[in-house]
Amino acid sequence: TAYRLPHSTWTGHNSFSPRSHTCAELRSKHVGEDVTLCGWIQYQRHDLFVILRDFSGLTQLLIPQDESLVHLKNTLRGLPLESVIKVTGKVKRRPPGQENQEMPTGEIEVCVESLEVLNICRKLPFEIKDFTKKSETLRMQYRYLDLRSPQLQANLRLRSQLVMKMREYLCNIHGFVDVETPTLFKRTPGGAKEFLVPSREPGRFYSLPQSPQQFKQLLMVAGIDRYFQMARCYRDEGSKPDRQPEFTQVDIEMSFVDQMGIQALIEGLIQHCWPQKMSPVTVPFPSMTYCDALREYGVDKPDTRFEMKLMDISEELYSTEVGFLREALRQREGCVQAIRVPGGANHLKNKDLESLRQTAQTQFNQEVSVVVLKADGSWKSPLSKLLPDAVKQQLLQRTQAEAGDLLLLAAGAVEVVRPLLGKLRLQCAELLEAQGVAIRDPSTFHFLWVVDFPLFMPKEEDPDELESAHHPFTAPHPDDAHLLYSQPHKVRSQHYDLVLNGCEIGGGSIRIHNASMQQYVLETVLKEDTSLLSHLMEALDSGAPPHGGIALGLDRLVSIMVGAPSIRDVIAFPKSFRGHDLMSGAPDFVSEEGLRPYHISVDWPAGHHGVKGN
Amino acid sequence: TAYRLPHSTWTGHNSFSPRSHTCAELRSKHVGEDVTLCGWIQYQRHDLFVILRDFSGLTQLLIPQDESLVHLKNTLRGLPLESVIKVTGKVKRRPPGQENQEMPTGEIEVCVESLEVLNICRKLPFEIKDFTKKSETLRMQYRYLDLRSPQLQANLRLRSQLVMKMREYLCNIHGFVDVETPTLFKRTPGGAKEFLVPSREPGRFYSLPQSPQQFKQLLMVAGIDRYFQMARCYRDEGSKPDRQPEFTQVDIEMSFVDQMGIQALIEGLIQHCWPQKMSPVTVPFPSMTYCDALREYGVDKPDTRFEMKLMDISEELYSTEVGFLREALRQREGCVQAIRVPGGANHLKNKDLESLRQTAQTQFNQEVSVVVLKADGSWKSPLSKLLPDAVKQQLLQRTQAEAGDLLLLAAGAVEVVRPLLGKLRLQCAELLEAQGVAIRDPSTFHFLWVVDFPLFMPKEEDPDELESAHHPFTAPHPDDAHLLYSQPHKVRSQHYDLVLNGCEIGGGSIRIHNASMQQYVLETVLKEDTSLLSHLMEALDSGAPPHGGIALGLDRLVSIMVGAPSIRDVIAFPKSFRGHDLMSGAPDFVSEEGLRPYHISVDWPAGHHGVKGN
Repeated sequence: TAYRLPHSTWTGHNSFSPRSHTCAELRSKHVGEDVTLCGWIQYQRHDLFVILRDFSGLTQLLIPQDESLVHLKNTLRGLPLESVIKVTGKVKRRPPGQENQEMPTGEIEVCVESLEVLNICRKLPFEIKDFTKKSETLRMQYRYLDLRSPQLQANLRLRSQLVMKMREYLCNIHGFVDVETPTLFKRTPGGAKEFLVPSREPGRFYSLPQSPQQFKQLLMVAGIDRYFQMARCYRDEGSKPDRQPEFTQVDIEMSFVDQMGIQALIEGLIQHCWPQKMSPVTVPFPSMTYCDALREYGVDKPDTRFEMKLMDISEELYSTEVGFLREALRQREGCVQAIRVPGGANHLKNKDLESLRQTAQTQFNQEVSVVVLKADGSWKSPLSKLLPDAVKQQLLQRTQAEAGDLLLLAAGAVEVVRPLLGKLRLQCAELLEAQGVAIRDPSTFHFLWVVDFPLFMPKEEDPDELESAHHPFTAPHPDDAHLLYSQPHKVRSQHYDLVLNGCEIGGGSIRIHNASMQQYVLETVLKEDTSLLSHLMEALDSGAPPHGGIALGLDRLVSIMVGAPSIRDVIAFPKSFRGHDLMSGAPDFVSEEGLRPYHISVDWPAGHHGVKGN
Repeated sequence: TAYRLPHSTWTGHNSFSPRSHTCAELRSKHVGEDVTLCGWIQYQRHDLFVILRDFSGLTQLLIPQDESLVHLKNTLRGLPLESVIKVTGKVKRRPPGQENQEMPTGEIEVCVESLEVLNICRKLPFEIKDFTKKSETLRMQYRYLDLRSPQLQANLRLRSQLVMKMREYLCNIHGFVDVETPTLFKRTPGGAKEFLVPSREPGRFYSLPQSPQQFKQLLMVAGIDRYFQMARCYRDEGSKPDRQPEFTQVDIEMSFVDQMGIQALIEGLIQHCWPQKMSPVTVPFPSMTYCDALREYGVDKPDTRFEMKLMDISEELYSTEVGFLREALRQREGCVQAIRVPGGANHLKNKDLESLRQTAQTQFNQEVSVVVLKADGSWKSPLSKLLPDAVKQQLLQRTQAEAGDLLLLAAGAVEVVRPLLGKLRLQCAELLEAQGVAIRDPSTFHFLWVVDFPLFMPKEEDPDELESAHHPFTAPHPDDAHLLYSQPHKVRSQHYDLVLNGCEIGGGSIRIHNASMQQYVLETVLKEDTSLLSHLMEALDSGAPPHGGIALGLDRLVSIMVGAPSIRDVIAFPKSFRGHDLMSGAPDFVSEEGLRPYHISVDWPAGHHGVKGN
């Protein structure tokens, strides 16, 4: 009841709670105050001190040495680490010379006068401070202990604040409406990666959608005008590194907007939510066409924090006699391309060069020629003897390579050479960084729009047929719309990707709002069965406004911002890469009885022997 | 490109858009301005006017009559209703006498100078303005049209703003952390209402949880201190009126807090998010024990907007000779109780009284005795002749019934009589309101805490065994904790329900944070298999702080606030009561091939003939 009134004036981290301060709050200005703290025993020292921890930080408690409080001293000394206590005491300045500059509360200590043991920690698989050294499996199994680490606490709190700022920007500043859309939906055409949810009607299943794409467009038809949602999405991809079966996207859709409008909205959003203590982002973000990205970086999500761009050296080698180069140049779309790795010869070891060749071989089934430019300017490379000096000179001029650099050359079809060199470019950056060479500043953030994607791509299994480069609702580029009906493969789209430090963190498009164009794309170009999308076609014909949107991958964005190696580090309870929850043991077996209401049974593979567990 | 710069200064509903104003924005102060509006053609009038609609409201467009703009006139006249246009024109004051006071923009009209047809509406199953008259099935099938109605637009926008305010209160004012928890989880013990999600591992299933209960508690063990989430929850109940298979709860958990703390937090939350234009709520909310609620209102979620409380008249009838009354009073826990319906005799018809008897009969298998107090003070009732005048006088005194009132009497076991009269009390209110009698003011909101619930209830199927009244993690009331090990059935809990206008809109509790107490409750009292909860038991033993929380049903709260008859009216894309999405046709059949990756097949009931469709 002490906490009851006057609660309307309470704010901050200590409201509705018996504590007067958090464990990171006390400074020398509090000396002499009586305070109450709650937290975990981080460690004890010399029977004199207890370090108390809560979500915010640490405070040193002084164990009283007077005879009258001997029971308190004995209790405090006897408590296992990670036990939870509430203490009341007086703030004292630490004796001169005993201040801790590393600790925000290092000027003071709290002289304990009374103690309440709230819970005793009886079992701990390992000490919290050693946690980060433990295997990830163990950390996942005891995720609630892992989350006590300052780093994971900071990650989850930054994520929460980031999302709050995004909501303020969208909802309060720009009039967006936060609308929740269903996750129990119908399987979409080609929805092979959608989890199924059996219903109680025999044979009927819901599907957990990969994104609210249909709903967000329908909300525009419904006149919502501006929609956003922090949308839970599902993707069943089996095991994939650093993917999660459920993930969160910042889902946005707007009516009466064009591509520039969405891009400006997102630039403002990122700027608004960007933490002040990080180096600021400037807007507008640079923009690059899909074609330029592939030509210069070999990928559609270039890491523009460093150079080492791809260079086409076909012209320089036009009249070469070297067999594999001539062969490459003769083939359709054949080329020879190179990247220059500054300082590569100085810093990369033989095993590094070998790993580059290995990547080319295993991932692309290609050869890569490595040219080491020695200190004296001579070439160390099998090519050295094969190429005339004049050509070598031309290549050095073209690539601006100098002594101490490395040149990587690849020859072949352009659609193989580019991704290969794009990959090796990134690998070189990593190898150099591993040698201590500064390539990418971890505190800078390079946002980049990639635009003018093709609307359709040839199908891998049948290159004469087309499939959507992104999804079938993407509108054609206005300059190319006339080609849609004659040469669809040449049409660029109004799709845009947002790239951050070489990772795709978002993508979106202006959508088709014309029913007959949508029908043409689905039926004539893509040869899709439109009956599953009839509700969407009908909707477009009932007064659909022009609209477009975007989805940002929240987990990925946050993980890049905090410099985490995996999205698992910014998700409270992630699944393992096999999709397991190692703490609870999900997914788990279900009894036949448990399946009966859903009219399904398990098809056990040969060798299994029926239902287990539960 | 016109929208590109300077976008950082843009705010409001028209940012990043070609429109200069929304359709609800223009007033006489704008007269003379050139404006651009986007919207839907609501209706045309006399070839002179077009009413343009967007999410915010309506603006009257004046169709130009000059010869030079005849093409524009013809286009505008020929457009089907609900077509989407962009118009530019000058704001004019309406001629005197033609202002429309009902319309916020009724002082002005916009004289159209140029027009862009953005989309032609080619198909409409019915006119938007007639929509509310259509069957709900049709409205659900064309939900995107239904959502264009001002009421549904207002509902979704209010919901969005409410949620935003709640977040500001929790996150910005009180330091709560918004943490997302997984929805692909493990089936909980007794989780019969949990949807299953087959994984790609034979026989293994995820489960869609009914709430993040375990995760929120684990987050407290993890030291998150203050957690909240607008959590998507799932409940597979088959068909139930006004339930949805997926719904949203405002999920909150806090460490180092007691029951009063959580209640004060929620009172502040409701007050903070309450819309200004609604009659204000005062805090603290009144509180009532579970026992008092049952005794006075017959239910644990009393509608306290009106009286008609239950009265125990057993004492007055102690020595009655009337057979069914005597029999009732003789049985164990037997009683006779009454409610007085003021004005009931004056306003309720015979068929109303019959419907009350019907309710008693069909829902409770009970008789109810109706006493009509006629204008002359005489009783119209079979009881009239059976009861001595003295007793009748005592009853009138006890119930304060007057001429024109109605008395409803029920006799039997207290656990039947109370819910019966509780139900009839609500039915009487509805019947009187249908007759135009003011019983409950629709603009007032009565919040009420119901507290001191029992911790355990006898199992329905075996009254000698106990089950949790709410869930097994609920802590005992501190005053009763000593009874836990001796007389568990007498223990009250630290559970609290929040009731609004007679609907339960939230519930929560202080949780057990002591592992051995939790083990005792699960194993000894409830006889549950704790192996499925071993991770939670381990967590409690590794330094769990005292903690508690609450979950508010967001859909229900919003529906009461806007006065909607169903939660479907505050959900963008609700399911039908059979759990179907009538727009897309979910749930749907899935081919055998589609099921193969999940190692399941359908058990078709006899009479079915295998896989259909898709």
